[in-house]
Amino acid sequence: MSKTPIIILNYKTYVESTGKNAVQLSKYVQEASEESGINMAIAPQAVDLYPIINEVDIPVYSQHMDAITPGGHTGSTLPEAIKETGVTGTLINHSEQRLTIADIDAVVEKTKDLELTSVLCTNNVKTSAAAASFNPDYIAIEPPELIGTGIPVSQANPEIVENTVNEIHKINKEINVLCGAGISTGEDMKAALELGSQGVLLASGIIKADDQKQALLDLVSLI
Amino acid sequence: MSKTPIIILNYKTYVESTGKNAVQLSKYVQEASEESGINMAIAPQAVDLYPIINEVDIPVYSQHMDAITPGGHTGSTLPEAIKETGVTGTLINHSEQRLTIADIDAVVEKTKDLELTSVLCTNNVKTSAAAASFNPDYIAIEPPELIGTGIPVSQANPEIVENTVNEIHKINKEINVLCGAGISTGEDMKAALELGSQGVLLASGIIKADDQKQALLDLVSLI
Amino acid sequence: MSKTPIIILNYKTYVESTGKNAVQLSKYVQEASEESGINMAIAPQAVDLYPIINEVDIPVYSQHMDAITPGGHTGSTLPEAIKETGVTGTLINHSEQRLTIADIDAVVEKTKDLELTSVLCTNNVKTSAAAASFNPDYIAIEPPELIGTGIPVSQANPEIVENTVNEIHKINKEINVLCGAGISTGEDMKAALELGSQGVLLASGIIKADDQKQALLDLVSLI
Amino acid sequence: MSKTPIIILNYKTYVESTGKNAVQLSKYVQEASEESGINMAIAPQAVDLYPIINEVDIPVYSQHMDAITPGGHTGSTLPEAIKETGVTGTLINHSEQRLTIADIDAVVEKTKDLELTSVLCTNNVKTSAAAASFNPDYIAIEPPELIGTGIPVSQANPEIVENTVNEIHKINKEINVLCGAGISTGEDMKAALELGSQGVLLASGIIKADDQKQALLDLVSLI
Repeated sequence: MSKTPIIILNYKTYVESTGKNAVQLSKYVQEASEESGINMAIAPQAVDLYPIINEVDIPVYSQHMDAITPGGHTGSTLPEAIKETGVTGTLINHSEQRLTIADIDAVVEKTKDLELTSVLCTNNVKTSAAAASFNPDYIAIEPPELIGTGIPVSQANPEIVENTVNEIHKINKEINVLCGAGISTGEDMKAALELGSQGVLLASGIIKADDQKQALLDLVSLI
Repeated sequence: MSKTPIIILNYKTYVESTGKNAVQLSKYVQEASEESGINMAIAPQAVDLYPIINEVDIPVYSQHMDAITPGGHTGSTLPEAIKETGVTGTLINHSEQRLTIADIDAVVEKTKDLELTSVLCTNNVKTSAAAASFNPDYIAIEPPELIGTGIPVSQANPEIVENTVNEIHKINKEINVLCGAGISTGEDMKAALELGSQGVLLASGIIKADDQKQALLDLVSLI
Repeated sequence: MSKTPIIILNYKTYVESTGKNAVQLSKYVQEASEESGINMAIAPQAVDLYPIINEVDIPVYSQHMDAITPGGHTGSTLPEAIKETGVTGTLINHSEQRLTIADIDAVVEKTKDLELTSVLCTNNVKTSAAAASFNPDYIAIEPPELIGTGIPVSQANPEIVENTVNEIHKINKEINVLCGAGISTGEDMKAALELGSQGVLLASGIIKADDQKQALLDLVSLI
Repeated sequence: MSKTPIIILNYKTYVESTGKNAVQLSKYVQEASEESGINMAIAPQAVDLYPIINEVDIPVYSQHMDAITPGGHTGSTLPEAIKETGVTGTLINHSEQRLTIADIDAVVEKTKDLELTSVLCTNNVKTSAAAASFNPDYIAIEPPELIGTGIPVSQANPEIVENTVNEIHKINKEINVLCGAGISTGEDMKAALELGSQGVLLASGIIKADDQKQALLDLVSLI
């Protein structure tokens, strides 16, 4: 498992985080991480993993991994193919790419076989408790009602973060919790950590910023 | 649009066509193409597109393209990201990655905007006629009852190839037809061309061969 | 095939068109049909088909039919089970329940075997032309950008209706065209027919009306 | 919540359990239940719920419930529509109709609001533990490798049943466990109960029997 990443930047499928832009953005993330001393990781599209891993030296995650074994699965993402790029780990069950409960189990198991770090995304306290049964390395909670609102979960609903941490740790104290949805400022970041999370999963707040590197530095300025 | 590819090798998600193996296989395909003078193209997993395109000089296709525009689509394959790898085109609607009719329309249109060659997969005469309304560059017909059987469509059901070609050409004479499912020998290949197709889409027959390059040379030995 | 239905009311999953409300609404539709002399049909949820068919004597359609054959498909809708309720036909490929092109083919064929009327939904001129290759009884075009806007397709984009009718009739002159999305007034209805359609497929404009029966009578008041 | 059902017969989409056949089968189940004194419940297709509930007086479950609220969801199964039929409860997340973890949470919550009994299906010990976090009334474990084999889970893999019961009861002792996959004889049934389950979920072993009622009586003959 990688060091606590504190920040995972999900590149999604924005133009600003695709292809050459993705490589450039990854260099900014590396610079921001080195200047601040805070661990920062990235999750680019599958197609961009190789060129980015060739250019930067920060933890890189896949955005998704299909619950498939080698064979006839045209257009899918084979776990072994993802592993071979040199990634650190993968997001699993992001709200934009939900899996069935049987597939979550299969993919988390597969990350263990492949020695990849697993970041399992959930949407509330109860699904986080369920997710803890699979013993992923991280659980990233993103209440869907806050995604894209600019309202951080740590402010709109601080008890959801605390309750999530508590419920998860009842089942397995080793699981780290990340806080997603609405995080964009240094104060959001600080609040997220004070509520018991070990970091944040975020996207558009940084990717769409005029100065992406500065936005990252601002994000970690109060911790 | 690329020259008639005659042969498109779909890498699917086999171990033999993933990562370093995929790069090596691509070199064999290039050698077989150069030695035989027959145009051969490949369709690797999205994650392997960059390393392969860096190493070989044959037409490379994506296996799939999601009907999405830039934005929040974690884990999906953005058409613009695929384009930027340098691919020639993409498979669309493979039997292992079916699309809705509205999405087929959207993706074929997108390939035209991006100047990519479209290979639209279908399963019978009627869906091929419907597919022709979208004016893709190629229609690849793969009767599902033959996939993986080793029985070539050109032998099991020769009239399906002829009828498909006829029905498609009633709507648009410019569309090339590829023949899929069960093709593995030189005789299958010859029969496929005699029935009016311009080439074949194939996978395991070559990928699982002990000598992949020789299997390709055998495949084109009678044409 | 039933008489040209002129109007098909899609009950979707509104409270106002579920259970006892659905039975009551169906009686209003029958009364409006009898009073106006205009053929009106309904498409309730699968679960409500039997109680409605027991109570009214107008054409009843299923909202959907899965592309399955008898066997292990827990939670799906078997075509034979739908047929046995006594329905006249089924909607296929509604924008809220899209099918792959292979499944559209299979379901339209199944409706022919079962002697059910098929109403195949599409979203633009090109997908309508593709849909015509399957020879359904009706094609209902609903441009997604107009759904739920209250702006009728016949007004926002009249040429889409005319072009759809033309393209469909190039392939098969027997196919009737229905116009969907945004229809709610007598003028919308009149325009839809003048543009070459044989009727309309509509939902919330009637279902959410304070007086559902009067809304139907208003809808047909100018024809 | 209904009494412990001991036996839930999933009608799936077999011809033998569709339409009039489904009504007749339901009468046989009621007779077998009355003669044996064992509680037996059934899960027919949504379309057949009303006619069956009108004819028999045993607990009836829906096979599935979509995670939707009233609105525009053509072709889906609204929870409120299912409730209004008079069902006792619903299966959730059957292996032939898997849900995302967020949707499982939403549907189980919905069954509580609607006062319906929830039977949440799982495939192994770990997903059963995760499922327990949602506090359904029943968890039915069906190892996919045994489905349709005729080999009962209680015989092929007895410890999976015991471990599932143990893991579930660590989280919530109130949850009843059902055993699925491969159960068809009285000995299978007896073993399933001895391993700690409160009953079985089964399908083809009974539905495809020449004498369905006798097959049910045999099933409970040793308990």
